[in-house]
Amino acid sequence: MKIESVDLFYLAMPEVTTEADGSQDALLVRVTASGHIGWGECEAAPLPSIAAFVCPMSHGVCRPVAASVLGQTLDGPADIARIAAQVEYDSMDLLQAAHTWSGIEMALWDLLGHARGEPVWRMLGYTASHKKTPYASMLFGDTPADTLRQGQSARAAGYAAAKFGWGPIGRTTAAIDADHFAAAREGIGPDALLMVDTGQIWGENVEAAAARIPALEAARATWLEEPFHASALSAYGALAKRSPNVRLAAGEGAHNFAMAQHLIDFGGVGFIQIDTGRIGGIGPAKRVADYAAARGVTFVNHTFTSHLALSASLQPFAGLPDHRICEYPFQPKQLATDFIATPIARDAHGNVTAPDAPGLGIAINPEGVRRYLVDTEIKVGGTVLYRTPAV
Amino acid sequence: MKIESVDLFYLAMPEVTTEADGSQDALLVRVTASGHIGWGECEAAPLPSIAAFVCPMSHGVCRPVAASVLGQTLDGPADIARIAAQVEYDSMDLLQAAHTWSGIEMALWDLLGHARGEPVWRMLGYTASHKKTPYASMLFGDTPADTLRQGQSARAAGYAAAKFGWGPIGRTTAAIDADHFAAAREGIGPDALLMVDTGQIWGENVEAAAARIPALEAARATWLEEPFHASALSAYGALAKRSPNVRLAAGEGAHNFAMAQHLIDFGGVGFIQIDTGRIGGIGPAKRVADYAAARGVTFVNHTFTSHLALSASLQPFAGLPDHRICEYPFQPKQLATDFIATPIARDAHGNVTAPDAPGLGIAINPEGVRRYLVDTEIKVGGTVLYRTPAV
Repeated sequence: MKIESVDLFYLAMPEVTTEADGSQDALLVRVTASGHIGWGECEAAPLPSIAAFVCPMSHGVCRPVAASVLGQTLDGPADIARIAAQVEYDSMDLLQAAHTWSGIEMALWDLLGHARGEPVWRMLGYTASHKKTPYASMLFGDTPADTLRQGQSARAAGYAAAKFGWGPIGRTTAAIDADHFAAAREGIGPDALLMVDTGQIWGENVEAAAARIPALEAARATWLEEPFHASALSAYGALAKRSPNVRLAAGEGAHNFAMAQHLIDFGGVGFIQIDTGRIGGIGPAKRVADYAAARGVTFVNHTFTSHLALSASLQPFAGLPDHRICEYPFQPKQLATDFIATPIARDAHGNVTAPDAPGLGIAINPEGVRRYLVDTEIKVGGTVLYRTPAV
Repeated sequence: MKIESVDLFYLAMPEVTTEADGSQDALLVRVTASGHIGWGECEAAPLPSIAAFVCPMSHGVCRPVAASVLGQTLDGPADIARIAAQVEYDSMDLLQAAHTWSGIEMALWDLLGHARGEPVWRMLGYTASHKKTPYASMLFGDTPADTLRQGQSARAAGYAAAKFGWGPIGRTTAAIDADHFAAAREGIGPDALLMVDTGQIWGENVEAAAARIPALEAARATWLEEPFHASALSAYGALAKRSPNVRLAAGEGAHNFAMAQHLIDFGGVGFIQIDTGRIGGIGPAKRVADYAAARGVTFVNHTFTSHLALSASLQPFAGLPDHRICEYPFQPKQLATDFIATPIARDAHGNVTAPDAPGLGIAINPEGVRRYLVDTEIKVGGTVLYRTPAV
C-alpha cells in the first residue's frame, strides 16, 4: 500500500473553558492508502499541530511532518517504525512534530489492521487482550464536600477505582489538601482504588510535595501523579525515595520513548502513564510497556479524550494481564462521544478491554465529526497550505 | 511598563534547501511596552511557532502563549521570570510553546535593557562581558578533500577554532569518517581548536559512536557533539564513560532547564550547548550556565542564525571568563545578515564580546526584514488570528 492522503480535522466545543479537561477540543486524523482508511487522534493543541504538518521546510532537519509521511509504503509494522524514525530525524528541530505524528501513527496502525483484518494488539505481538479495571478520571471539587460528591458519583456508577485531579490541590495548605484526599476516599468507599493527580502544581519543589504524602498514605492512595514538571527528573527521584508506600506516577508529558525511560530510571516512578496521542503513537508506547514490565513498573494509559484515543492507548499493554489499571474518561465533553459510533463499554463487572475488531476497533460517526468541525485556513506566501477538509 | 504588542515576523530565503543550515529562515519577535521596543528571535519552525502564539485555547493548561504575555507588567527581570512560569504552566500541553516563548523572552530582556540603558549581561548580575573565542561553525564537505578546503577557509579567515558538522559523517564507515576528521585537522592547522558535530546521526547506538572516538582523539578534537538524540541520556552517559579525552557536547535540543541539567547529571557531557532561541530564552540559559559552572562543565552558546540570536546566546555566559568558546555563524545565509544593522564583529585578535550597548545591543534593519518577509495568514472559525504585521 501507499499512503495517499492524511486529513486533519480540528473539532471544538462551542465554548472552551480553562478547566483541565482535554476533551474540549480534538484533532482527528484520517489516513487513506490503497482503498483502506485509518483514524487516529492527537492529544495536542490542534492549530500548532496542523501547522507542523503543513509548514514550509526550515532546513534539512526541520521539515514538515507531511514530508516524511505522504507517499510512503505501508505494508506492515516495520514501515510504521521506519516512517517514525524519518519523522524523528527530519523534523528534529520542529518541537510540535511529535504531537502531530502521534495521531498519524495511530491511524496507520488502524489502517493496517483493517487491511489485515487484525486488531492492533495482535500486530504488536500479543496473543490476547486482557481485561482492565477502568478508573473514573475526574477533577477534584472546589471544596472537600464537592470532592466527596464526585467520589460518590463514581461509586454510584459502579467504578472500582477513581482518580481525582487538579482543582484546588497544592494551591493552599497541606491541611486543606488532606481534607480533599479524605473526602475522595470517603466518597469512593473503602475498597475502591484511589489515585491522585496534582498536575505539576509543585514545579520542582520536593518539600511541598512531600508535605502531602502522610495524608495520601492515610487515604490509602495508590499513586501520586505528576507532582512536578514532566522533565523534573531529579525532583521525582528525590520524592520517590521519601514515599515508599504511595508510589509516583507520571509520563503523560513524554513526547518520546527516552522521556518515559528516564522517568523510570532516574525519576523512580512506580507507574508510567503514556498517552499514545503524544509519545509518537502506539509503537513507542509499546516499547515503554516492554521496558516498564521488565523493571517492575506498571504501565497505565493516559486518556482524557475520546474512545478512539482510549483504544489506541489500551493497545500497547492489552496483552499484559498484571498491568490492570486503565484510565477511562468518566465525564468527557459531548464532542468526544458524538464522533464515536462504537464506544468501549464496560462489561457486567465494570471492566474494559481493547477491542477484538480489526485495527483500533472504533467506528467513526462522520455526522459527529461535522458537528464540531472548526473551519481553519492557513495561507503562506499566497498559497493555501491547509483548509479544513471534507469529512 | 505594560506589554502592549508582540509581533511575529516570518522571514525566509527565496529557496530553502535540505542542508542543515538554520539560517535559511527566521522568526523575529518585536515587543512594545510603554514606548520601548525589544527584538528577539526564535530558533524554530516559524509557522508552528506563530500558531502556538495565536491558537485558540484547548483547555486550562493548553493555552496560547499570547494569553500569558499580552498586557503583563514588565518592570524588571522578576517579571520576565514570572511570565515564563505562567507560560510553562498554562501552555504545559502545547509542545511548541517553548520555542515561541524563547524569542519573546529575549525581546523582553532587550526591551528592559533599552528602558534601563543597561546591557542584558549586567541585568543578569555580571560585572563584565568577557572576550570569547569564536569558532567558525560550518558543515563537513562531501569528501575529505572538500572538508580540507573548508578547514583552510576558516584558517584563512583567521579563526583559532572551527567546528565541522553533519554532512557525510556516520552515513558510511568509521574509516571514511576518520579521513574527514584528519582532513579537518589538517585544514585548520595544528594549533586551532577542532570540534565535531554529528547531528544525532547514531540515534541511541553507543557502539557506532564509540567506533569514531579513536580517530577523533587522533585529530585532537575538543568535543564530539550530539552523537545521539537530544533525549537519549543513557546513551550519552555510556559513551561519556568510554571517551575520557574527547568530551561530549550537547544541549541545543533542550527546550527547558531540566533537559540541560539532565545532560550534565545523567549524560555526562563536558560541554553544555544552549540555544536561547529554544530553551525558553535568556533566563533559563543563565540558570544552566550557573549550574554548569558549579559542576566543572563548560557552557557554550548554540547559534546558527543571526547576530541577534548570537547576542542573546552570549549574554548568559558573558561574565564567565573561563567559558571561552563561542559558536559564531561563519557562513550564514544573506537573510541572517541583511536584517542586522550592527553585527558583532571580531576584534583584531579574532575575539567577540557580548555588546556593551543597552539590551541585546543589536540594531535591526527594517528594510532587511521586509526583504525576506513571508506573507502569512491564519484564519480559524472565520476570524483572522494572524496576519503578517507591518515592520
